[in-house]
Amino acid sequence: MKAIEDYRGRVNKALRDFLDKKLAGDSGYSKETRRLLENIREYSLRDGKRVRPIVAIFAYKCFKECDMKTEDELIKASISLELMQSYLLVHDDIIDKAELRRGGKSFHETYSGGDFGNNIAILAGNLCSGYMHDAILESGFSEKSKLEASRYLTWIDERENYGQALDILPGFEVSEEMVMKIYELKTATYTSQGPIYIGGALAGAQAGVLEKLQTYGTRIGIAFQIQDDILGVYGKVEETGKPNDSDIREGKKTLLITKALELANNEDKEFLLNNYGKSDISEEKLEQIREIIRKIGALDYSKKKARELIEQGKRSLENLEIRDEGKNFLTTMADYVQSMA
Amino acid sequence: MKAIEDYRGRVNKALRDFLDKKLAGDSGYSKETRRLLENIREYSLRDGKRVRPIVAIFAYKCFKECDMKTEDELIKASISLELMQSYLLVHDDIIDKAELRRGGKSFHETYSGGDFGNNIAILAGNLCSGYMHDAILESGFSEKSKLEASRYLTWIDERENYGQALDILPGFEVSEEMVMKIYELKTATYTSQGPIYIGGALAGAQAGVLEKLQTYGTRIGIAFQIQDDILGVYGKVEETGKPNDSDIREGKKTLLITKALELANNEDKEFLLNNYGKSDISEEKLEQIREIIRKIGALDYSKKKARELIEQGKRSLENLEIRDEGKNFLTTMADYVQSMA
Repeated sequence: MKAIEDYRGRVNKALRDFLDKKLAGDSGYSKETRRLLENIREYSLRDGKRVRPIVAIFAYKCFKECDMKTEDELIKASISLELMQSYLLVHDDIIDKAELRRGGKSFHETYSGGDFGNNIAILAGNLCSGYMHDAILESGFSEKSKLEASRYLTWIDERENYGQALDILPGFEVSEEMVMKIYELKTATYTSQGPIYIGGALAGAQAGVLEKLQTYGTRIGIAFQIQDDILGVYGKVEETGKPNDSDIREGKKTLLITKALELANNEDKEFLLNNYGKSDISEEKLEQIREIIRKIGALDYSKKKARELIEQGKRSLENLEIRDEGKNFLTTMADYVQSMA
Repeated sequence: MKAIEDYRGRVNKALRDFLDKKLAGDSGYSKETRRLLENIREYSLRDGKRVRPIVAIFAYKCFKECDMKTEDELIKASISLELMQSYLLVHDDIIDKAELRRGGKSFHETYSGGDFGNNIAILAGNLCSGYMHDAILESGFSEKSKLEASRYLTWIDERENYGQALDILPGFEVSEEMVMKIYELKTATYTSQGPIYIGGALAGAQAGVLEKLQTYGTRIGIAFQIQDDILGVYGKVEETGKPNDSDIREGKKTLLITKALELANNEDKEFLLNNYGKSDISEEKLEQIREIIRKIGALDYSKKKARELIEQGKRSLENLEIRDEGKNFLTTMADYVQSMA
């Protein structure tokens, strides 16, 4: 997407400036705390699309034109969402025992994993959580706007943690409804709903008006996760850059598998229950799982679900009185999510 | 302290109300997320002095008189510091593998410990971190005051995590200077400095004026930790309610042991190095460690250091133009810290 290309460099620069300032100001306690901040900086600056800050930027543009100076401040505030991403990923990777992230080691693995690596990663995540607040609080917007944006920030933060808890706590029947709830809490919240709230709040949009954008925010965020999960099973690694076996090996709760278990005959169901989530599953059985999900219609169902959500999201924009610059971005974004899988 | 007795009940009530509201509003995702919130509520409401909110309340009173309605709002905002305490303790206990806290299980042990218990506790800590922001943001103060208080909140949050990192990262020589730095970051920040900043900010005090109170905040916070560490080795369990062997067993970096290692002759030093931090140390050797620290003057040195800091803290208040109600509390508080050990 052109808008993303246009802004990514400036978002990266703002992120780098922010972390350089932290490094200059906060890290003088010891050589090791300095290295901790350097590691946080390296981790946060790894390649990424920076979609979430850019959604916030265009959510602002839904409501207000942006002169150069304001845009600089907006970009500075928007990196809050990248810092949040660092915070959430660092903690998620401890929980999921993930070893790789963004083309490098997961944060706890930077410290050789184990209890020690996990402990340092808990603290590093917490630091990023503090930073995400700083980025909003230090930006050059009105007190009222920053306060509103800060409230949305804690709203995102708490929903993310509820979503993650829902995901890892036992005791619920995995159903389509529950998977969709996790998608909403864990993905839509910080990918689209939250950035829209924050960008809108910085533009001084009223809560009632922002609420109306949330049909879009929820639908597109959930659709994004459905598509991403499809790539996680059927994607070509050389195109997507992400593995297409780890969701199966980890037994990730996705719409694909939930629907597959619902639709499968006894034999297929038994095969799925015995093999989905096995870390040492063979290539052959991996392929069999892909085939079962496809042949019983769970793949088509998921694609259709994503398409419907994207259509609903786009339609919800039609009668909204928001500025074209913002609306066009959101429409293109929806089309991009459609094109993913 | 009478002031603490006077306010503790109201702080507890505000904390209970806040968590009941969270439970009513946020927990409906599943039975298990509801139980998670119930556990956070139970954990946060366990017996405690509520010193930190009460310091914030009286820091406000240093600058402004407080009518009944404002005081209600102040108490509601002040529980931010209890929620921060929950957040920090839940995460600290994962890191320290502590099994007990506040007369009950540590949070991860509520979920039977292990990876699963730790993972849930990471999320629970994060939720409390979100809540601590909510408590400030939702309180009835001016936008400017809430924004200032929020900035101090992230300042505390980040310093705590730097302090904890400094404590657990290897690679520095344990020296008196470094131990004092950890005391300042890990204890003074959220026990006295931070609450003073937050209470003062809510009263609309200027940063420059608040800065002047920080001589007190730093000194008393550090002195508190020195005294607490003395109780952690020499306290009578039946009086203090806290163990007097776990600091030694865990090898906690305290002023006592740092100074003892500095002053000890070769034989005593070797004994300390061989036994301090041994989890299965015998009662006899525990007593020998207490005796060495005492006889070579490290206990007296620590007591003297605490006394000096308390004196400096009290003296720093003398010429400050703050309201008597606040000043008297801070003076009494300093005397209380003196009386601890």
